[in-house]
Amino acid sequence: MAKETSNGYVLRRGAGFRWDDAPDEPYKSDASFRGVRRVNLAGKRGESTRFHLRYFEVEPGGYTTRERHRHEHVVMCQRGEGEIRIGDEWHILQFGDVAYVPPDFVHQLRNRTSEPFGFLCLVDAERDRPVPVEE
Amino acid sequence: MAKETSNGYVLRRGAGFRWDDAPDEPYKSDASFRGVRRVNLAGKRGESTRFHLRYFEVEPGGYTTRERHRHEHVVMCQRGEGEIRIGDEWHILQFGDVAYVPPDFVHQLRNRTSEPFGFLCLVDAERDRPVPVEE
Repeated sequence: MAKETSNGYVLRRGAGFRWDDAPDEPYKSDASFRGVRRVNLAGKRGESTRFHLRYFEVEPGGYTTRERHRHEHVVMCQRGEGEIRIGDEWHILQFGDVAYVPPDFVHQLRNRTSEPFGFLCLVDAERDRPVPVEE
Repeated sequence: MAKETSNGYVLRRGAGFRWDDAPDEPYKSDASFRGVRRVNLAGKRGESTRFHLRYFEVEPGGYTTRERHRHEHVVMCQRGEGEIRIGDEWHILQFGDVAYVPPDFVHQLRNRTSEPFGFLCLVDAERDRPVPVEE
């Protein structure tokens, strides 16, 4: 199906969790993370949803930026196994597990396994900028 | 982890795509569908997200209501294989495939396989009521 938003679309997942018509994008431009790729799956191609759906994948040994912000995260594991920090606690995430990060909670995701760790991250379309957190 | 929204939460997926602390709920109360269960995964337990995350599962031979509404759907297959109708076209959905239903497009999901078909459905928290479509 052609990717015409006005007529709907279907994005096919291919090998290695890569999608037709939804390319990998840089996660961030700084050095606060390691081994993370992102794919914007929905919400940025002409839809008017109040949310964005993104897929992130963390390489073995990788991690996302430790940060906080006012907007909430809903995370759902899709591939492999990883960990999420919410506030001061770390929780293991496996396929199908859902995590919620409340406003202003410090959070981070990491992969201490030998396989890729992939997860969905849902956010409001209108949201504040993340603030990195040093420790 | 206890399900305390103010401190974040993690919902563990168990066998058969059932989650702790997120029970099955009735899909609808009419006879417009067959063999569908739903689970509210995020957005209805005190979060202030502008979206809701739901999991639906359609039994072999089952289908959701044929309907239309102003709000958009973002669908992502999680289990088995099914089909989604967007407007006049049917598309196969397998694990990881994403589909977008634009405003007012007639849509329906069905399972013509012998295994359960499970998918996420993302919607705006504020949305209009679906209108069943006869044919």
